[in-house]
Amino acid sequence: MNKDGLFLNETFDLAAKAKGYTSPNPLVGAVLVKHGKVIGRGYHKKAGQPHAEIEAIRNARRSLRGATLYVNLEPCCHWGKTPPCVEQVIASGIKKVVIATKDPNPKVSGRSVRRLRNAGIEVVVGIEREKAEKLNEVFFMNMRKHRPFVVAKAAQSLDGKIATARGQSKWITSDASRTYARTLRDTYDAVLVGINTVLKDNPTLNGIRKIPYKVVIDPRLRISLKAALVTKSSKKLIVFYRSRIDKKKKAQLEKKGARLFPFSDCKSIVKTLYREGITSVFIEGGSDTVGRFFDKKLVDKIYFFYAPKILGGKDALTSIGGKGVSKIGETIAIKDMDIERIGHDLLINGYPKYC
Amino acid sequence: MNKDGLFLNETFDLAAKAKGYTSPNPLVGAVLVKHGKVIGRGYHKKAGQPHAEIEAIRNARRSLRGATLYVNLEPCCHWGKTPPCVEQVIASGIKKVVIATKDPNPKVSGRSVRRLRNAGIEVVVGIEREKAEKLNEVFFMNMRKHRPFVVAKAAQSLDGKIATARGQSKWITSDASRTYARTLRDTYDAVLVGINTVLKDNPTLNGIRKIPYKVVIDPRLRISLKAALVTKSSKKLIVFYRSRIDKKKKAQLEKKGARLFPFSDCKSIVKTLYREGITSVFIEGGSDTVGRFFDKKLVDKIYFFYAPKILGGKDALTSIGGKGVSKIGETIAIKDMDIERIGHDLLINGYPKYC
Repeated sequence: MNKDGLFLNETFDLAAKAKGYTSPNPLVGAVLVKHGKVIGRGYHKKAGQPHAEIEAIRNARRSLRGATLYVNLEPCCHWGKTPPCVEQVIASGIKKVVIATKDPNPKVSGRSVRRLRNAGIEVVVGIEREKAEKLNEVFFMNMRKHRPFVVAKAAQSLDGKIATARGQSKWITSDASRTYARTLRDTYDAVLVGINTVLKDNPTLNGIRKIPYKVVIDPRLRISLKAALVTKSSKKLIVFYRSRIDKKKKAQLEKKGARLFPFSDCKSIVKTLYREGITSVFIEGGSDTVGRFFDKKLVDKIYFFYAPKILGGKDALTSIGGKGVSKIGETIAIKDMDIERIGHDLLINGYPKYC
Repeated sequence: MNKDGLFLNETFDLAAKAKGYTSPNPLVGAVLVKHGKVIGRGYHKKAGQPHAEIEAIRNARRSLRGATLYVNLEPCCHWGKTPPCVEQVIASGIKKVVIATKDPNPKVSGRSVRRLRNAGIEVVVGIEREKAEKLNEVFFMNMRKHRPFVVAKAAQSLDGKIATARGQSKWITSDASRTYARTLRDTYDAVLVGINTVLKDNPTLNGIRKIPYKVVIDPRLRISLKAALVTKSSKKLIVFYRSRIDKKKKAQLEKKGARLFPFSDCKSIVKTLYREGITSVFIEGGSDTVGRFFDKKLVDKIYFFYAPKILGGKDALTSIGGKGVSKIGETIAIKDMDIERIGHDLLINGYPKYC
């Protein structure tokens, strides 16, 4: 890897520090280099707070005249909650900007690059692009498809089961895996489950450091007002119902700060969630709920935990239910599969590609 | 690892050369060492042929007086198809014998060690014992439980499915995985499937280098006389039927050299197979067949292949069917789990431990 690659990788590390906290903004890190030495670093900590480039400029220990700015994502050129970064970069005396990837939004992509070049700044784009896109996979999905990035979790036995035929499921995976899964909740905006999971386990669905939004698919509004999701964090609760529901219960939930929406299928759910500002969703089950999202080709990433166990049984609950594919040729391929051991368990992550 | 360990590891490598060919005998390798140098090597190639110790003695390039014999399994002291090894070891002038593990048969275990010691030979036992037992896991199971070593294979998706809801299953795993699975057939005495697999796929169930015995569980004797298993290797065919079968078909199959036996459950099947000289069985499905062996706690080892794919679907076929465990506390644990990548696929092997 050349010098540019190394400095860009440092921007990735800086950007990743805020993972789970910048929504709806992307993760951005910036490094300022002069005479081969880093003279300033910055990253975007939270929506509304300064962008990474500005943080790096403010933190710079020396004059920026003649410096190079490294940044994982094309700087912005529009007024948002903060002023456009490009103008401040131009004003600072920086002479070169190295960008890993352009803005994914086709309407603005390349615009800042042009603005910088017109101001006489040398711009290099596209080094470490793949890594940069993966770092901001949530943001890229948001910009390209105008919907949340959808992640499916499953905690299963080696034969793909998440509960015995009698419905027992506590616990298949280890403490270590379950803690790891809770850290994943920290990195996404919302955790989503079907109503059966709520009725059966009464979960809080919180992360380790964060209280994410909790989304419940509850066609007949069966959720109890005494459910932990209502009593502990009703302002973070989003419920999808279908029809003929108890209007009084709906009003009671809304009074507590919960948001309720009708839905027709998974597509309408992700559409509504995105409109409500949810940029990423972590689906934790059950079998049928996650299966329906696969059926609609809506799952973008998987985290499958495997315990070194066999449950067996034709009537045991499969990890991914729903309709499923009918032909082998329609199988959902998992790309860039990565495997790690979590104690005695296995964790596989990867990216579904649909036919 | 000390010198003894290193020489014993060489006996393991020698022994493993005959994997799949020594049945019903164990895998045995022997190394003769004098003044720190190997002066002879041997391994047991096939039942009826010389034992490893004798091979090594015959191959020795120098006088054996004062030499040390390394061997992975306690030498025999009984007349079988060949004369007892201990007497030849004693007669050879060997002064020390290093044995990784005693004979697993409780009736003879330690007897040769005593005989050697009584003859004034120094004997060391138990170095690298675990590895030695794993090398001969088939033989140890045979001796300890008087039944074949039972291995279950499954080729599944990441969500534990071996066929779509419509029954399509060709192919889930890759060419490389399927070739690997065929090499596994080479290492066991028999391949076992349920009749549905025969009717659906008409497989030959052959290995790469070997034509193993083929066992079909066929309660109503539905196998066709035109099935590949009948036309291509009927003398290697063993069929288990239950009742009310076509007696004429039975006679026809027997005339072709097939063996047919009634059975009541999986336990009676393994009992009969062992009586018929089958020391190891490789179960290749389907879902229900392998599930029933798990239900009876009869599976000793698993080879689970996973393709980087998702099939989904509550009605898709699960890899391990049968009754399954009803409580999480009864879950079958997989010990010594080992993971490797076969191309893009994953292969997990391990040893079920039952409650």
